[in-house]
Amino acid sequence: MDKRRLGIAVIGLGGAVGTTMVAGIELLRQGVIGTEGLPLAGTDIGFAAYEDIVFGGWDLFEANLAKAAENHDVLTHRQFVAAESALASITPWPAAANKSFLANIEGGNVLAFDTHREAIEQIRSDITEFKNGCDDAVVINLASTERLADAESMAFSSLEAFESAIEANSPEISPSMLYAYAAIAEGVPYGNFTPSVSADIPALIEFAEKRNVPVAGKDGKTGQTFIKTVLAPALRSRALKVEGWYSTNILGNRDGLALSNEDSLRSKIKTKHSVLRDILGYEVEDHIVDIRYYRPRGDNKEAWDNIDVVGFLGMPMQIKVNFLCRDSILAAPLAIEIARCLDLAARRGEGGVQEQLSVFFKSPMTKGGKVEQAFHLQETMLEKWLGG
Amino acid sequence: MDKRRLGIAVIGLGGAVGTTMVAGIELLRQGVIGTEGLPLAGTDIGFAAYEDIVFGGWDLFEANLAKAAENHDVLTHRQFVAAESALASITPWPAAANKSFLANIEGGNVLAFDTHREAIEQIRSDITEFKNGCDDAVVINLASTERLADAESMAFSSLEAFESAIEANSPEISPSMLYAYAAIAEGVPYGNFTPSVSADIPALIEFAEKRNVPVAGKDGKTGQTFIKTVLAPALRSRALKVEGWYSTNILGNRDGLALSNEDSLRSKIKTKHSVLRDILGYEVEDHIVDIRYYRPRGDNKEAWDNIDVVGFLGMPMQIKVNFLCRDSILAAPLAIEIARCLDLAARRGEGGVQEQLSVFFKSPMTKGGKVEQAFHLQETMLEKWLGG
Amino acid sequence: MDKRRLGIAVIGLGGAVGTTMVAGIELLRQGVIGTEGLPLAGTDIGFAAYEDIVFGGWDLFEANLAKAAENHDVLTHRQFVAAESALASITPWPAAANKSFLANIEGGNVLAFDTHREAIEQIRSDITEFKNGCDDAVVINLASTERLADAESMAFSSLEAFESAIEANSPEISPSMLYAYAAIAEGVPYGNFTPSVSADIPALIEFAEKRNVPVAGKDGKTGQTFIKTVLAPALRSRALKVEGWYSTNILGNRDGLALSNEDSLRSKIKTKHSVLRDILGYEVEDHIVDIRYYRPRGDNKEAWDNIDVVGFLGMPMQIKVNFLCRDSILAAPLAIEIARCLDLAARRGEGGVQEQLSVFFKSPMTKGGKVEQAFHLQETMLEKWLGG
Amino acid sequence: MDKRRLGIAVIGLGGAVGTTMVAGIELLRQGVIGTEGLPLAGTDIGFAAYEDIVFGGWDLFEANLAKAAENHDVLTHRQFVAAESALASITPWPAAANKSFLANIEGGNVLAFDTHREAIEQIRSDITEFKNGCDDAVVINLASTERLADAESMAFSSLEAFESAIEANSPEISPSMLYAYAAIAEGVPYGNFTPSVSADIPALIEFAEKRNVPVAGKDGKTGQTFIKTVLAPALRSRALKVEGWYSTNILGNRDGLALSNEDSLRSKIKTKHSVLRDILGYEVEDHIVDIRYYRPRGDNKEAWDNIDVVGFLGMPMQIKVNFLCRDSILAAPLAIEIARCLDLAARRGEGGVQEQLSVFFKSPMTKGGKVEQAFHLQETMLEKWLGG
Repeated sequence: MDKRRLGIAVIGLGGAVGTTMVAGIELLRQGVIGTEGLPLAGTDIGFAAYEDIVFGGWDLFEANLAKAAENHDVLTHRQFVAAESALASITPWPAAANKSFLANIEGGNVLAFDTHREAIEQIRSDITEFKNGCDDAVVINLASTERLADAESMAFSSLEAFESAIEANSPEISPSMLYAYAAIAEGVPYGNFTPSVSADIPALIEFAEKRNVPVAGKDGKTGQTFIKTVLAPALRSRALKVEGWYSTNILGNRDGLALSNEDSLRSKIKTKHSVLRDILGYEVEDHIVDIRYYRPRGDNKEAWDNIDVVGFLGMPMQIKVNFLCRDSILAAPLAIEIARCLDLAARRGEGGVQEQLSVFFKSPMTKGGKVEQAFHLQETMLEKWLGG
Repeated sequence: MDKRRLGIAVIGLGGAVGTTMVAGIELLRQGVIGTEGLPLAGTDIGFAAYEDIVFGGWDLFEANLAKAAENHDVLTHRQFVAAESALASITPWPAAANKSFLANIEGGNVLAFDTHREAIEQIRSDITEFKNGCDDAVVINLASTERLADAESMAFSSLEAFESAIEANSPEISPSMLYAYAAIAEGVPYGNFTPSVSADIPALIEFAEKRNVPVAGKDGKTGQTFIKTVLAPALRSRALKVEGWYSTNILGNRDGLALSNEDSLRSKIKTKHSVLRDILGYEVEDHIVDIRYYRPRGDNKEAWDNIDVVGFLGMPMQIKVNFLCRDSILAAPLAIEIARCLDLAARRGEGGVQEQLSVFFKSPMTKGGKVEQAFHLQETMLEKWLGG
Repeated sequence: MDKRRLGIAVIGLGGAVGTTMVAGIELLRQGVIGTEGLPLAGTDIGFAAYEDIVFGGWDLFEANLAKAAENHDVLTHRQFVAAESALASITPWPAAANKSFLANIEGGNVLAFDTHREAIEQIRSDITEFKNGCDDAVVINLASTERLADAESMAFSSLEAFESAIEANSPEISPSMLYAYAAIAEGVPYGNFTPSVSADIPALIEFAEKRNVPVAGKDGKTGQTFIKTVLAPALRSRALKVEGWYSTNILGNRDGLALSNEDSLRSKIKTKHSVLRDILGYEVEDHIVDIRYYRPRGDNKEAWDNIDVVGFLGMPMQIKVNFLCRDSILAAPLAIEIARCLDLAARRGEGGVQEQLSVFFKSPMTKGGKVEQAFHLQETMLEKWLGG
Repeated sequence: MDKRRLGIAVIGLGGAVGTTMVAGIELLRQGVIGTEGLPLAGTDIGFAAYEDIVFGGWDLFEANLAKAAENHDVLTHRQFVAAESALASITPWPAAANKSFLANIEGGNVLAFDTHREAIEQIRSDITEFKNGCDDAVVINLASTERLADAESMAFSSLEAFESAIEANSPEISPSMLYAYAAIAEGVPYGNFTPSVSADIPALIEFAEKRNVPVAGKDGKTGQTFIKTVLAPALRSRALKVEGWYSTNILGNRDGLALSNEDSLRSKIKTKHSVLRDILGYEVEDHIVDIRYYRPRGDNKEAWDNIDVVGFLGMPMQIKVNFLCRDSILAAPLAIEIARCLDLAARRGEGGVQEQLSVFFKSPMTKGGKVEQAFHLQETMLEKWLGG
């Protein structure tokens, strides 16, 4: 592994996932934690080393990351103490905000801009400065889920139309699109870990291809959907017909609060829905996904799935899965691996949509073909790319 | 699909799985059920058609299959009525019994023999007669689990040693070994759906190779282990360290009763145990498997798994899976597909251990190499064979 | 037990619960089922015998009860055959409908009336005729949940105001209020098994007291709330502080479909909500109740509860309850017992609100004091009444 | 509440429950925790105040309680720091050991004695000295479960026989009997929180009555049995017939290790078994209780119950309860309350078996009548005693 500093610029750096990424890398550096949860640990093919990763990023809250981490309460006491000074040394840059896309979350650390173009310039300038302190950089979006944008809009249909919309300050353009545009313009790979549409529009894909910048997304596959894309292919393989799948989630962190807003929720649920049809090859009419904001859990998240299947002789059976997980603990290492893969792609000169990273996403961006949702087939895709 | 009658001779024909196989094929023939639960439905590469399958077999109970099915109470009322006459027309042949291998289950339909050799001759004669009524035949073992035989015994180390042990009426030779020997001697493929050691000894593998007869086993992968071999590879893929896996089963059918005998239970649990180490690549010290005979469920079986994993930052998380399944409903279609695959192998001239059928077994027989336990890799192996 | 015919006139007779009541009594009469699920079996203090109960009632669907029962698919095949002729002999009378109170459910068996007064007269005439065929009668409401009426409305504040509202054909008066009024006017006890407000308004309580007619309600306590009112008092008794209680339900019968209408759902959830505060003595801020229409289950209903409690040293613990129940199987025997109790109260000359029946209801009607929600205290109340 | 120091002498003081009791009282004294989990908080009728409780006791491990608590890992980091000096100031006295009653657990802090009489004298001397430092004292047994003693033995049938057996150094007498005898001899109340037979023999009950010393036991009702005795009465009340009840437990603390010894396990399971019959009034043939030592949980304990019930029309339903609890967190406050109640009884001059404390025990000692197992009836019994 060559010695180079990989900078990860995180949109939503002060959130639970962002601070967990930073703390985790620091604790790895100190040797006080192992590589549990990091899928590509041990794969040495030109990746930046975990120890050589540095962080920066934007957040609507201006608190330094030690204060932020204290609120999120993800780390143990001992871990917090060990990572505290490293966390305290990072303060998020002011973030681009737009209430029409994100209603619930307040925070005063807001980028002042009058036009989309101004916002883009400021973001580009942040990235440029950040790049100066490292060898390579990647932008990862971890900001709260935006209201669902209309990916089919004419304004997003081509780079040309999109740039006209930028000039016209079109209300259709969300903050996460501005970040994606700015990153690509800077030649910095962009990974979207959230369900927001962001780079998943023809215009930005065109832009990424033109500049040969790797992009990937969207919506990190952490808990319930991870289990869903593991079980569903096996049910198909056994010819067990899925008659219904009821999924409910309770979670109590900032992400959960954002999702208690109807518009953000719609965005989230959409990416969860097509999964089953894509894997099973038929529509499951009783596929229900609920997400509820429930504070007693804090950052702990719980999913309960009930699956009704029909087997031989038309006999009904049931599978229930109860996943008591920790949102940030599952998300942070995946976000780190996505960044390392995007960086590797950039070094290999492979720009555009990185479809081989599908295993990390609930709603994978593709180069145009059919989305692969089955976990083990996504895994094979990634292994092939790593091996090549 | 060519029109030929495939005969399946079932050891333990009158059990819940055996009668469900027979009833299922009859109901398919009548068009009153679909192909749910049959993994290879729709794969047309020379398989015998479901409708062209006929049944015979041995059982310690002499009741005809209609009476047997009534006791097992697997079919709905309407299904029973539709299949009744077909079931009533089949009466099991007397079966080979040996109390030192199977203590709990009684039944009077016992093959009279003084020596192993006599038993083998009688079984061969049953098979010969059965073959006369069909184009091809396969023997499938569904009998209750035998006491764990010592697969490392010198008596099983070569065909020559085994045949000497037969002549010496060695007490080490179990009934299911006699069946396997007889089937191979007749050139009829043999599939072992039970955890009994049976054909999984060097002697019988040598015999199968010598005669170029396909054999496969052992222990059909129906419920909990199916889920286990689906989830464990995904946990490995996400680098979630498995600290403990507690699996408990409650079931109330004849199979459950047999397992309430300590010796049979040991046999069953053994095949469940190595699975995790093989998939994960490390030993899970707190891997516990319980099986309890619990009558309220009848043929319905319930598994509860609790999995303790450790993720990023060493944080513990839990996954719990509750599978409310039906033993015979899961097992019967797999036993049918195993028979069809063994028949296909025979027609292709591929004798010996059929490792590509691993996806159907908890404890796959191999040609000597490492056992593959991960469900999706087993599936790939089978697909490759089917495709070729 | 004296030999007298108790007639139960059911509003919503053709529903799953109504047909199950009728079939159950018929099967008890034939001696083919036992008294499981009937809490007062074996209590002999003047109750009408189960065998002496007869049924009539209203429904928006005109199908006879055999046809209705076939659709609901609650009975086993053998039970259906045994009860079929008894069921077929009963056809529901036309029912009062009002789309502003019940939007989702259609059905052509509608009572024609222009004014509230006409509707009341027709219902009274149905009751009069029904009473002729039995010694005593009771009206039980099992109709689909109405939109939540405003129980605080001036129109409901006194009998006088209510009767003026009747004459004025006030849109505030729901069908179930018309039924309750008619029953009381006929001197027939009225039990409300649904969450609809119905008799739980000052006007109708005044009417019931004036005529000395027993009334009881509302919302039969069958599944999840039953468990909730059993567990919550015990948690209080152990000083385990409830921080959150997440309850979700999936169900697929006609009742579930009605609840997929927002207005009916609100009515249902309201009666579920105050339960915890009443029992625990403090507000559980994270008390969430979800109900989802999910067809694979049919009449089977499933509840999943997650309870977060805090114990000694402020330590969090969790209890999860998964209840796989059958809606009509739990509801029908309770509706029968409510009818027998109301009849007993009438014979004892005890009119007005029957608070001692609280154990059967999610949202018990009271004589004015505090509602008792703890299951075991409700039980004690009933036992005392039965004993006296 | 009068100001007096209540001393609790704990057998097994250094265990997870014992150290949690000590830490909890210290943290209450400091005002850093609330009274969650303490059922009698707020009941002020002559109880010793929590803040005025002091501790002493015996343990086979000689580590001071701070070291012991560190191993058990029950407290949060902050709680440990706050309680550390108080914990460190207490070191357990040498404990009586007998390998024939407790095989698994080792520890060098052993009382040296040649005869039962010597052991008793030493224990009495420990108690006397301890009493000097407080106003009143109680002995509470929290030691690991002993091998099941034969409570019907002639040696235990009367005080006279027992004292003869002491002189004869009878191998039938277990260590916990010696402690109970010593406490009663000292006029100090004795509470047995473990499943060991201990004081629950005619001889020691006779002794307690003769000396008018309060005794209570046995086996603290913390997790699964608590839930069982709450749910079972409600199922009975609803006439839901229990066909089977499968209970399994996984736990990883020292108590769990002791239970991995067959003999101790038998003792534990016995007290769990009669519960259902006593509450339901009939035998549940498929009542299974499993306990498994499973280290990933540490002091966290998990219970999974599956209950099969039959309702109206003979229809089967299922209830599953998953209790993720913390053994010491549930046990410690109950042990404290038992001590306070025994002390109150002593001050009231009420000696002998304290049946009104049944709500705290899995296997309540009685004055001779029927054991009451239903949680809510036990609660009523206690409330009546407290109120009187």
